[in-house]
Amino acid sequence: MRAAVYTESGAIELGQRPDAALQLPTDAVVRVVLSCVCGSDLTYYRGKRPHAVGSIGHEAIGVVEDTGAEVTSVRPGDLVVVPLQFHCGECAHCLGGTPFACVRGATFGNGTNDGGQGEAMRVPFADRSLHAVPGTGHDDALLKSLLTLSDVLCTGHHAAVCAGVRPGHTVAVVGDGAVGLLGVLSAKRLGAERIIALSSSPVRQALATEFGATDLVAERGDEATERVLEMTGGVGVDATLECVGTAQAVDTAFRIARPGSMVGLVGISDDLDPPVREAFWRNVGWRGGPCQVPVYLPELLPDVLDGTIDPGRVFTWESDLGGVVAGYRAMAEQKQVKSLLRVSPL
Amino acid sequence: MRAAVYTESGAIELGQRPDAALQLPTDAVVRVVLSCVCGSDLTYYRGKRPHAVGSIGHEAIGVVEDTGAEVTSVRPGDLVVVPLQFHCGECAHCLGGTPFACVRGATFGNGTNDGGQGEAMRVPFADRSLHAVPGTGHDDALLKSLLTLSDVLCTGHHAAVCAGVRPGHTVAVVGDGAVGLLGVLSAKRLGAERIIALSSSPVRQALATEFGATDLVAERGDEATERVLEMTGGVGVDATLECVGTAQAVDTAFRIARPGSMVGLVGISDDLDPPVREAFWRNVGWRGGPCQVPVYLPELLPDVLDGTIDPGRVFTWESDLGGVVAGYRAMAEQKQVKSLLRVSPL
Repeated sequence: MRAAVYTESGAIELGQRPDAALQLPTDAVVRVVLSCVCGSDLTYYRGKRPHAVGSIGHEAIGVVEDTGAEVTSVRPGDLVVVPLQFHCGECAHCLGGTPFACVRGATFGNGTNDGGQGEAMRVPFADRSLHAVPGTGHDDALLKSLLTLSDVLCTGHHAAVCAGVRPGHTVAVVGDGAVGLLGVLSAKRLGAERIIALSSSPVRQALATEFGATDLVAERGDEATERVLEMTGGVGVDATLECVGTAQAVDTAFRIARPGSMVGLVGISDDLDPPVREAFWRNVGWRGGPCQVPVYLPELLPDVLDGTIDPGRVFTWESDLGGVVAGYRAMAEQKQVKSLLRVSPL
Repeated sequence: MRAAVYTESGAIELGQRPDAALQLPTDAVVRVVLSCVCGSDLTYYRGKRPHAVGSIGHEAIGVVEDTGAEVTSVRPGDLVVVPLQFHCGECAHCLGGTPFACVRGATFGNGTNDGGQGEAMRVPFADRSLHAVPGTGHDDALLKSLLTLSDVLCTGHHAAVCAGVRPGHTVAVVGDGAVGLLGVLSAKRLGAERIIALSSSPVRQALATEFGATDLVAERGDEATERVLEMTGGVGVDATLECVGTAQAVDTAFRIARPGSMVGLVGISDDLDPPVREAFWRNVGWRGGPCQVPVYLPELLPDVLDGTIDPGRVFTWESDLGGVVAGYRAMAEQKQVKSLLRVSPL
């Protein structure tokens, strides 16, 4: 089958992989309908983090094509969200609410297993890992929003939850990538009263405003810190979402957090270096890391289905699977917020 | 008046300071009955952190001797807990639940204001800062427990709260100083089912067990990590209290925390360097810093008064104020858990 592959030279190409097929009675095979490129994929594309040669991509919705004998929760023809990772649902970490640490789980598109940026995926532990979408006849806008449940919306929500966003809060979101923008949406959904989006791009500022940002800060670094502190009477914000991962963004996030507050840290970096000492004395804490999609999805799915939230608006570029490399490039050059791949018709 | 002073040569001595006196109508003057030495005082004693020349010490209970014209909540003769810091109760940080960041507040014994290790203290914002102890005729054991409310018990509780201890949890407490031991007590009080105390000293192990530890780990560093992981089926603990502050202790705390859990980090260090990257990928977060005594004291005071908890058992050494330097030495040499100073009779 056709699929994006990470090559030995470190490039991403549209290539061929073995057809997705059942291997265990708990597997399902899903034909991918929509996929997309994640900010974390870009870290591999840019050569900033190593990636195994082979499959890549971990965001997809699709239609179940085949199920193993033990699969009972989905059947062929079902529309499903494939979360960024599969998990067993039975180990201590799954039962403890942290399926990302599942001892039998793995992120899709890890080089070996099937990635989201391909024609189909074998999904292990299908009863646990797949989320069936109720109803039929969903329009294109809704399908795009459903796709965001596989990672990016849940990650924005994760940042807001980790930051401890509560009704009435003044919140700052550092980063205007798709995660940051959906962090804005998530903060709004959780009742934030004032949402300061740190964004310098007019297109992203507009999206942030649509998603609920009440204030925009175009500055970066020390100037951004000063600006946010000035806007909050020198106090800092009640909750901070860090959705970039660069040293500068992480530093800003900790410095604009008010004493006693939390930074929801989801921006991916392999050399995180938060200002720990200052944070300690200011009682600023941190929670974050990769998102637990299966934990959040049941709460978010109804709001997507009934149109309360419309996270699919983060897709500003699209193509068929053949355009996957162009999709990476468009995001890497920061010309587009997030690249959608129309892999097969519904 | 007589008081411990931090000298120009970096030593701590018993010296003379101006008598504590009212300066503002919102002040009170408290005659110190009991005081003690804090682990953070030891960082100055050991020369590991700078301290202004002058007053030192921030833990005390005493009797109100005089009050300014605007003070209404306490009156001369009242027994009071003096928390580690005074705070105005009206700024954004006080109102936001983080009085440690009070814009008008300061820690007692900062060189300039009166310290707890002295005969008396001027307490600014007395209506907010002092906590009157109800009842009379409290026995000596209870007075010692009341003294722990000024910092060390609240800090142990803070570590447990920041670590997210909940009923049924398996908890680890790194550190067997007074804060760690009262972290054990606090975890028990919050319903932890299993409490693993990392302690190698027989005296401290015994106290930890009295306070609720169910398991003892005498190892340190990688061996301690391996041991705790082994004890928890490779999973790690549900909540971790870091009550030391050394690089090794912080590292251990993050590594024994189960994925998705929190480290309550209260051990004081000026070169904190947690394994941030590993913590990120394991969804291990961190909250901590200095304790918000006024936030916690109202919850803890009733349990001290009715004997539900007996935190005063952490005092393993005592003298009058004249023995203050010996009290520092006893703790610095790790011969004693915590040094009590009997400054004046009740």
